[in-house]
Amino acid sequence: MLKIGIDAMGGDYAPEAVIKGALLALPELARDSVVVLFGDEKAIRDTLAQENADVSNFRIVHTTEVIEMGDHPAHAFVKKSDSSISVGFRHLQENLIDGFASAGSTGAMMVGSMQIAKQIEGIIRPAISANIATLNGKSFLLLDVGLNVDTKPDVLYQYAVIGNAYAQTVMKIREPRVALLSIGEEKEKGNIATRAAYELMDEGKAFNFVGNIESKQIFTGEQADVVVCDGFVGNVILKEAEGFYEIAKAQGVKNEYIDKLNYEIVGGTPVLGINHVVVVGHGCSSPLAIKNMILQTEKTIRGGLVEKLREIFN
Amino acid sequence: MLKIGIDAMGGDYAPEAVIKGALLALPELARDSVVVLFGDEKAIRDTLAQENADVSNFRIVHTTEVIEMGDHPAHAFVKKSDSSISVGFRHLQENLIDGFASAGSTGAMMVGSMQIAKQIEGIIRPAISANIATLNGKSFLLLDVGLNVDTKPDVLYQYAVIGNAYAQTVMKIREPRVALLSIGEEKEKGNIATRAAYELMDEGKAFNFVGNIESKQIFTGEQADVVVCDGFVGNVILKEAEGFYEIAKAQGVKNEYIDKLNYEIVGGTPVLGINHVVVVGHGCSSPLAIKNMILQTEKTIRGGLVEKLREIFN
Repeated sequence: MLKIGIDAMGGDYAPEAVIKGALLALPELARDSVVVLFGDEKAIRDTLAQENADVSNFRIVHTTEVIEMGDHPAHAFVKKSDSSISVGFRHLQENLIDGFASAGSTGAMMVGSMQIAKQIEGIIRPAISANIATLNGKSFLLLDVGLNVDTKPDVLYQYAVIGNAYAQTVMKIREPRVALLSIGEEKEKGNIATRAAYELMDEGKAFNFVGNIESKQIFTGEQADVVVCDGFVGNVILKEAEGFYEIAKAQGVKNEYIDKLNYEIVGGTPVLGINHVVVVGHGCSSPLAIKNMILQTEKTIRGGLVEKLREIFN
Repeated sequence: MLKIGIDAMGGDYAPEAVIKGALLALPELARDSVVVLFGDEKAIRDTLAQENADVSNFRIVHTTEVIEMGDHPAHAFVKKSDSSISVGFRHLQENLIDGFASAGSTGAMMVGSMQIAKQIEGIIRPAISANIATLNGKSFLLLDVGLNVDTKPDVLYQYAVIGNAYAQTVMKIREPRVALLSIGEEKEKGNIATRAAYELMDEGKAFNFVGNIESKQIFTGEQADVVVCDGFVGNVILKEAEGFYEIAKAQGVKNEYIDKLNYEIVGGTPVLGINHVVVVGHGCSSPLAIKNMILQTEKTIRGGLVEKLREIFN
């Protein structure tokens, strides 16, 4: 039995959006997967009843507190020890669940990721990533999208190794094309960190390094399956894509591809390089976003990413 | 008489696209503006004849060489001393023209900008910028878009001052809203350089600093007229916008706003912070792009940007 822990209290529209999302995910989950909801049991049961849903489809872990967006993440994680996020991470630590996802406080999720799940030995800095749809009907993994800024070349190199492992285990690509985001295709283009990272990646031969890629090219899917960058840059890229989706929507543009840039479809960003599967959702997640976050969590667990990364780095 | 120097040999489709662009620009230029074409006189005259255009509308400065895309910019700038770009910069230096624009070798244009036009005293590093259309029917200035990477906080601060001056003199905005690009609106969000730059901008009171802006927000026009960032980041933003335009086009999306993200409409990127008006166009400029590059050059000259910057920094 594979147990997917979900924070029922996380996100701007919780618990309703979370419960609805879990119900949407249910038919697409494997038979031996179960969603474990962390949160106020009464609220969860009431919402399930409203949706005429069978409570026996889920397991519920009752928690009495919620880490709010305004809370200081590190303080709240400790002080609100019976919050859905804190309890979720304890369950993860004790292997009572196989993965944990929340659209609640990103800060608290990161505290749990770094202090409870902890980085895998040998990994300098974990990363957060985004799976973004490409024009060829597939997707690419962008990392880091905001966990680390001022990233050093050796960390960028490790992101490439981590991204490569993710693409192999979760995206099921045998030989992922790994690219370094820069401002020109030539190896001498870029800033200090990317130019040094290029050398490391080119020498490493640890993955199929396809060289530099420009931001103009990432969405075609023609050049890369994994795109590595500093977290400041990755966050800028991700938010610009979100911005374009919103522009297109506001302008009444109807296009299947552009719709896929909607963060709701993306679901969540997995925290990569830690000892457990943790997925962080968007604060304003809709039921569809929650559904995709749950499916992504299941996929990451089943892919065996954590085990693979331990194998590589230990 | 205001003299706008244009490299007739610059760009992938020169001289045809340049001549056609100059002809498109002609009716929109002020009566006392004249376009001075630098290039092979025969080729220019032949192209004008093909277009049934009156050669007396232009001045021609005959040059015998062309700096090619494959040439080493710094070497070629000196060796090909009779190239359209080298001769153009000499004319600029001797005040025989009031501005110079080219869609040719960006490298050679930058060599001319830095070695001939030279930076204005007091400016640490000049920048290149892009004027990008916003949803509210206006535009914002993004700088730097690729001249400097690994930008220090004091340079980012100067970009804000330069951008503010550009917005006032060329975009004719009385009190431009100047923002710093970051990955969150809170002042403590960002990387080392942006957090330090935030402090400088906030203390400086030299312009209307509106704080951090995220890449998602820049296209709305609701928050900022000038957006300051490191050149690596700015280049990534610009190329992502170009990428989206191309995606939309490839997907058959017809939308007036998205069409404005076409680099052809943008025209060229002015080099800001040097002692002359220099505008660099896209290598694959169409006649429309050239037309807009010419109009932008005229506008930058008329605005008195160089004089304004000298006043501020000297």
